[in-house]
Amino acid sequence: MNGWPEPLTALITALTRLPGVGRRSAERMALFLVQREPALAQELADAILRARASIHACTRCGALTEASPCRLCTDPRRDDSLLCVVERPTDVLSIERSGSYHGRYHVLGGRISPLEGVEADDLRIAALEQRLQAEPVRELILALGTDVEGEATCHYLARRLARPGLRITRIAHGLPAGTGLEYADEVTLGHALQGRREMT
Amino acid sequence: MNGWPEPLTALITALTRLPGVGRRSAERMALFLVQREPALAQELADAILRARASIHACTRCGALTEASPCRLCTDPRRDDSLLCVVERPTDVLSIERSGSYHGRYHVLGGRISPLEGVEADDLRIAALEQRLQAEPVRELILALGTDVEGEATCHYLARRLARPGLRITRIAHGLPAGTGLEYADEVTLGHALQGRREMT
Repeated sequence: MNGWPEPLTALITALTRLPGVGRRSAERMALFLVQREPALAQELADAILRARASIHACTRCGALTEASPCRLCTDPRRDDSLLCVVERPTDVLSIERSGSYHGRYHVLGGRISPLEGVEADDLRIAALEQRLQAEPVRELILALGTDVEGEATCHYLARRLARPGLRITRIAHGLPAGTGLEYADEVTLGHALQGRREMT
Repeated sequence: MNGWPEPLTALITALTRLPGVGRRSAERMALFLVQREPALAQELADAILRARASIHACTRCGALTEASPCRLCTDPRRDDSLLCVVERPTDVLSIERSGSYHGRYHVLGGRISPLEGVEADDLRIAALEQRLQAEPVRELILALGTDVEGEATCHYLARRLARPGLRITRIAHGLPAGTGLEYADEVTLGHALQGRREMT
């Protein structure tokens, strides 16, 4: 015997594919799942499949949603003249939690990163241009991360999307430099939104 | 919008039930699962259900296995005169990995712990007594953790199981005091097995 029974090894391997899960944590989780009530394992498996089957990117803004277009795109109380551009679907939730924003969103799907092979065409920029044509947007708020690639992507977007009658702003550097939105607390994010400044 | 879509929230909640998984890690895992290829989520769900359905405690020794009795109980090359008592199914694997032991195993299912409400009757001690009657065991090796409860359980077992012709030994304190078997490396565990000493 040089290890676990095969189905347990398979489960451990599947668990290590999750982000932040090492071999030892995967073993603990797997042992927990096979030793507790079967209902617990069933519930987790069901939750995985149900979430995977029902959650999609909103066809308009790119946020994660069950219905498409999502609640944020269809809510008539939100301000159509404001459009906030973020890197990832999770960033939408971070900004919503700050309670400082009531416009629409657009998820880019990343930022331009030559090192990681991500070019402008890999992002949802063409879709953003179409929205700027079709929707009454008066201010485009760039809420990308403050690291080098986030900055570079903002400058690229500001140049490419500039058009008469459109303000392009960038959320303030209230957040610590060099990090993404997901590590910022609500207050910092709120300040960053309130302190946004004009981009030329 | 004050949070994730419901199926995502359900998945996050199910993931936080796993040991060592906090809210933030669960969110990262859930987002990973709904955003990557569907095959990945399907594979993990399948692995969970398959492991849960096929892995059981061996009816004889209590180790985790697909077939019962398990390979360790049925392997004719192992020494029937040695029986090693451990707390948990995982401890069997830890000892197997040390390569220092070739007898049989018996998993207690825990240790006596008045604080956690675990009494002698909650452990597989009666089953152990039956095995001592039925099997040609000449040495019972107590390989429990070295914390206070592990020590106390060893003393209880040594008293209760004492019988003519049976040596009862305890693995050496090669392992650092106050920890369980799962944190020990193979070498330490090997030393601990080799240095086992007589218990009165």
